[in-house]
Amino acid sequence: MTQPICYLNGKYVSFDQACLPLNDLGIVRGYGIFDFLRTYNGVPFKLTEHIQRLQNSAKLIGLSLPWSSAEIEEITQNTLTHNHLAEANIRIVVTGGASADFITPLGQPSLMVIVTPVSEYPQEYYEQGIKVITVPIERFIPKAKSLNYISAIGALQQAKQTNAVEALYVNSQGDVLEGTTTNFFVFRGSQLLTPKEGILNGITRDVILELAKDRFEIVEQSIAYSQLNHCDEAFITSSTKEIMPVVQIDELHISQGKPGENTQTLMDLFQNYAKS
Amino acid sequence: MTQPICYLNGKYVSFDQACLPLNDLGIVRGYGIFDFLRTYNGVPFKLTEHIQRLQNSAKLIGLSLPWSSAEIEEITQNTLTHNHLAEANIRIVVTGGASADFITPLGQPSLMVIVTPVSEYPQEYYEQGIKVITVPIERFIPKAKSLNYISAIGALQQAKQTNAVEALYVNSQGDVLEGTTTNFFVFRGSQLLTPKEGILNGITRDVILELAKDRFEIVEQSIAYSQLNHCDEAFITSSTKEIMPVVQIDELHISQGKPGENTQTLMDLFQNYAKS
Repeated sequence: MTQPICYLNGKYVSFDQACLPLNDLGIVRGYGIFDFLRTYNGVPFKLTEHIQRLQNSAKLIGLSLPWSSAEIEEITQNTLTHNHLAEANIRIVVTGGASADFITPLGQPSLMVIVTPVSEYPQEYYEQGIKVITVPIERFIPKAKSLNYISAIGALQQAKQTNAVEALYVNSQGDVLEGTTTNFFVFRGSQLLTPKEGILNGITRDVILELAKDRFEIVEQSIAYSQLNHCDEAFITSSTKEIMPVVQIDELHISQGKPGENTQTLMDLFQNYAKS
Repeated sequence: MTQPICYLNGKYVSFDQACLPLNDLGIVRGYGIFDFLRTYNGVPFKLTEHIQRLQNSAKLIGLSLPWSSAEIEEITQNTLTHNHLAEANIRIVVTGGASADFITPLGQPSLMVIVTPVSEYPQEYYEQGIKVITVPIERFIPKAKSLNYISAIGALQQAKQTNAVEALYVNSQGDVLEGTTTNFFVFRGSQLLTPKEGILNGITRDVILELAKDRFEIVEQSIAYSQLNHCDEAFITSSTKEIMPVVQIDELHISQGKPGENTQTLMDLFQNYAKS
């Protein structure tokens, strides 16, 4: 198998040759941020927005980036060009870089851009909807896409044990916020609700709100777990999952166990928009 | 300069040659745990206890380790032997290992043992005492020594800006719990207080409680920030800092700005114990 080419600290190298030294703060302290996007028709989708969010994540954890938006964009495009993929997932990771004492940043972050083929989810997830579970976890600096994913990995393992595809975080006030790698939406009639605070600002989320605004009443507010039985449809969104209908949350069945009509409308709108 | 020799996934290699592939969950998800100790007279101090804690940390984040205590101990001893250091710091790190989708563990964790010369802190820290600050942060799974150190790195940078050496976490109830890499103690007269819940169980902390029990009344309970002005002495402890006297917490001066007598007694006892 041809190895993908990735970018790492100034070089474009074969993925199986690329590696990070052990005193990088990404390895010894989980200190870093990332962003993740995909291409449609070979073009990175919302690249500018993803780079902006990457920069905001860096700012929120106090990591100063020596690269401009234009430089990160160029590196990303070049990495993509080096790989000859029809469609690609693109992961941009910035860690704190080498540290002499394994805790103090030296101000030279590591930048890597990793390109892989787009991995499609099973078609039945979209046609029949998925199950998700909820977990009582609050994320650290939720507006930052940081590398602190220990609780997410645990939550996803828990989800898989019950055939669920995603785990949703519920805060101490009992509000459902977002998934480990997704945003969360529900329909109540033609009212589209999605949390606004305490979540990562999803780029796909923004696109969906834009596409939905002429058709549905949008309400950005917290969604109480206790009120989920009053919702008619639910779905999660992300760069790779796009819009994935949710038909079960823990033991609660939603939308009579099949994807709802309004969700389907948004799925169609999103496909048209992304692929046009 | 001779490069240290480290252990990485089955091999003993020069530190500058050792590196981890970019799809390791330690890099892309901060998923892992570690432990840290030092030698006295060339012998790892409380190695068994540190390995036990490492195993407990792994369990707490759901990472199953394929190595027995004896194997980790042997690898640690071998790494130490490869380096010819009078005294060494030893960092044992376990990450989630490679992942095909950058989030799901494949069940093959990465193990690294990194040995470096012991770095002494300035003598004046011990003779004159240090300043620390407090930060309103609660750690994720405090009993686990996980790689989630983003908030610790931020807190330490904040500390350094005001010439403080350490930052102490204060929880939402207003209790001072521990430092970013240390445990916290105060004396009220001859009563020695230290938190027990919501903290990492420090190995040095345990040694100090053992050494102190015949001389002082030990009270393991939460320490309210608002009650710090009633304490007579304060200190922090860790494998490398040992016992470091604290004479200022934020703007509060403690122990008339110099290390207290009881703290000094414990410092002497600890030195005798560790070096005997």
